[in-house]
Amino acid sequence: MNTQPDNTTIPLRFNEQGLVPVIVQDAETGEVLMMAWANAEAIRLTSLTGAAHYYSRSRQKLWKKGEESGHTQQVKEILVDCDEDTLLYKVIQTGAACHTGYKSCFHRTLNGTVTQKQLVRPEDVYTK
Amino acid sequence: MNTQPDNTTIPLRFNEQGLVPVIVQDAETGEVLMMAWANAEAIRLTSLTGAAHYYSRSRQKLWKKGEESGHTQQVKEILVDCDEDTLLYKVIQTGAACHTGYKSCFHRTLNGTVTQKQLVRPEDVYTK
Repeated sequence: MNTQPDNTTIPLRFNEQGLVPVIVQDAETGEVLMMAWANAEAIRLTSLTGAAHYYSRSRQKLWKKGEESGHTQQVKEILVDCDEDTLLYKVIQTGAACHTGYKSCFHRTLNGTVTQKQLVRPEDVYTK
Repeated sequence: MNTQPDNTTIPLRFNEQGLVPVIVQDAETGEVLMMAWANAEAIRLTSLTGAAHYYSRSRQKLWKKGEESGHTQQVKEILVDCDEDTLLYKVIQTGAACHTGYKSCFHRTLNGTVTQKQLVRPEDVYTK
């Protein structure tokens, strides 16, 4: 579970579930799009294919971003933090990163004010 | 432990330790600076004072960013994600966000290539 991805020389510190948090940022605009989790296999596949992969804690499975919606992420760079337990993917986002149809998952203030326009309607993107 | 901060109308979903991850971004440049954790009290103090507060999992205590180093963060905006379990602080960073003296904690690729200049020497900032 804690197997190191092939392509990294920095020994990542996975949590007790074998995961690290991944911050996802638009490589062009700098906008923070979402946060997700990755295991070693997700990081390996991301590096190998250039398509962002994560590990779903709720579904307990590996997933490729956009596999259902088509809203994929092309990963331009992966950075690791000083503690070696968090990653930053810099991506080219196709469509909306958020499953609610917004470009970013971070589209509301703490008081609920919506700070972005909805790009797509979720019912047009997801079949279930 | 899961007490809601006073100032938010969105019911945050804290984890079993009563914490949410916080992504910290430079409000001016868009650079992702660090990731930390916050409990309800840290969020309340951040909103109240405008100075970034977090909860240290290793030290098990609330901390104000820069309380030792002087490298404080003035929080301009707090956003919440669609799942209501992750925050984004947009901040004006004084000095270096990273305890290693780099502006951002994310200053290395997976292969260890350093992508930034060190701003300060940690031994000049921290007394221990």
